[in-house]
Amino acid sequence: MHSDLVAALDIGGTKIAGALVDGDGGVLLRARRPTPAREDAETVMGAVEAVLAELAASALWPGVGAVGIGSAGPVDASAGTVSPVNVPGWRDFPLVERVRRATGGLPVELVGDGVAMTAAEHWLGAARGHHNALCMVVSTGVGGGLVLGGRLHTGPTGNAGHIGHISVDLDGDPCPCGARGCVERIASGPNIARRARENGWRPGPDGDTTAAAVAASARAGDPVATASFERAARALAAGIAATAALVEIDIAVIGGGVAGAGAVLFDPLRRSLRDYATLSFVQRLTVAPALTGGDAGVLGAAAAAAPDRRGAVTLTG
Amino acid sequence: MHSDLVAALDIGGTKIAGALVDGDGGVLLRARRPTPAREDAETVMGAVEAVLAELAASALWPGVGAVGIGSAGPVDASAGTVSPVNVPGWRDFPLVERVRRATGGLPVELVGDGVAMTAAEHWLGAARGHHNALCMVVSTGVGGGLVLGGRLHTGPTGNAGHIGHISVDLDGDPCPCGARGCVERIASGPNIARRARENGWRPGPDGDTTAAAVAASARAGDPVATASFERAARALAAGIAATAALVEIDIAVIGGGVAGAGAVLFDPLRRSLRDYATLSFVQRLTVAPALTGGDAGVLGAAAAAAPDRRGAVTLTG
Repeated sequence: MHSDLVAALDIGGTKIAGALVDGDGGVLLRARRPTPAREDAETVMGAVEAVLAELAASALWPGVGAVGIGSAGPVDASAGTVSPVNVPGWRDFPLVERVRRATGGLPVELVGDGVAMTAAEHWLGAARGHHNALCMVVSTGVGGGLVLGGRLHTGPTGNAGHIGHISVDLDGDPCPCGARGCVERIASGPNIARRARENGWRPGPDGDTTAAAVAASARAGDPVATASFERAARALAAGIAATAALVEIDIAVIGGGVAGAGAVLFDPLRRSLRDYATLSFVQRLTVAPALTGGDAGVLGAAAAAAPDRRGAVTLTG
Repeated sequence: MHSDLVAALDIGGTKIAGALVDGDGGVLLRARRPTPAREDAETVMGAVEAVLAELAASALWPGVGAVGIGSAGPVDASAGTVSPVNVPGWRDFPLVERVRRATGGLPVELVGDGVAMTAAEHWLGAARGHHNALCMVVSTGVGGGLVLGGRLHTGPTGNAGHIGHISVDLDGDPCPCGARGCVERIASGPNIARRARENGWRPGPDGDTTAAAVAASARAGDPVATASFERAARALAAGIAATAALVEIDIAVIGGGVAGAGAVLFDPLRRSLRDYATLSFVQRLTVAPALTGGDAGVLGAAAAAAPDRRGAVTLTG
């Protein structure tokens, strides 16, 4: 009955989410643990094993045919290892082998979290039916993934689509990655908030200094808050246009907390895109908000574990 | 004997080159006409037909199984049309259909000239054996193409790899394409020469003001000439690093007249690449000069006309 069930893991710096996902994208069971991000490698792995044990206790488990993992990056899918920036205990940690062992030898597929979100949006979200798409998460960081020719383009190491760390301002501010003027350095939530504060924006009585608070101010007409979102939109537009020129995409899907700002982000983004996406073959490019929300991680991990089937579902859907 | 012969056309703003190319990349016959770039559509097509007629007069012609075209862009491979910027008489010109008719119904494959050069370098040049590569021409303009997963990535319209028009300086100088701070606007030969002149460089007694003359001055130790090449190298490095972050490439191959500057370009390019290609999965990226030279256009057009066979040759070569 459930031979198309996949166990999906979404591993981030804050939480480890697990789910059993069926062939239609139904989430039949969920499990979750906080990520012990400051602990040693085995303690972090223990949390993963606890999530897997909770899933394995289900009567559905015997129908699980594969495990999909979407992990905070960088990952190395070819080596089966992960080195999440925010989980210092894991450096070249052999996650694929450990999950294979913990699940009695099931096949395990690993992709970066940006690729996983892309797989989810292509399978069930705003990129559904699109043969060439960029999907992005704009949040604490900026990540992404690509669909090319109707299929997920993971790259040899599972990191393709890393739009957050392309430079759109080669003389710009240093980025923690070591480069300058990266899209993330301009467009991430913390950078939107930082830029607003530097230019005189002040939080309201609740003391909220996040990008969401800046977005609320922008919506209320605050020009500094508006300008900070416009600057982020411009960097995103330059990055999206670059991607379109390089690989020919026809849609850019944007999710993550910053995308929750809605028109405050999307209106200037669509305007700026006209400034940067000028070549004839990229002018039809559209921008859309992501649809898979909080389940993007596990749905995408599930999709990545069975790319042929999910691809077929997508392309005929 | 020659069932694997391809008729190849390389269509640029200056010349129309044709060749008969065998399955090993041997060029058995060449033909060439100047491009009547300022004339009307039929006059330009007349020059193409003259090249084809010269090839068709050969005793080898009955062995030709397909025609490959690499054309100055933009092209639209899905529509079979071309609109080369420097040939104003051709706008959405149905080149594929016209070449098919002129050759008695042979199958015709059209790609942009950057994609063609990439096909040539992947088949017979510096990208040979690489599954993921960016190949570029740095000349009057900056073009390029991609090999992904061992295969040419043309994109739906045949324009993928357009690295010359990605913005690496979102507040930078306006580019003729309509955007700002494009790689081409900083790194093309004319822009290298312009920047050198603006900063005080003066040509020698021969009056040569091209990038080649600036390169000669840089080689002789002129600091302004050196700085102009370093700036171009920085823009190229940012663009190459962006491409690597987006699609995971392991080599960037650079041809065209500006690449002829040799170490004057490649030394600062390799240094700058370390500044921008910082993510773990792009750090192994190397840069190499192109090898196919003046034949890149026809060889690439031939390769594009038979991608499966050329791909197989490449991957086992």
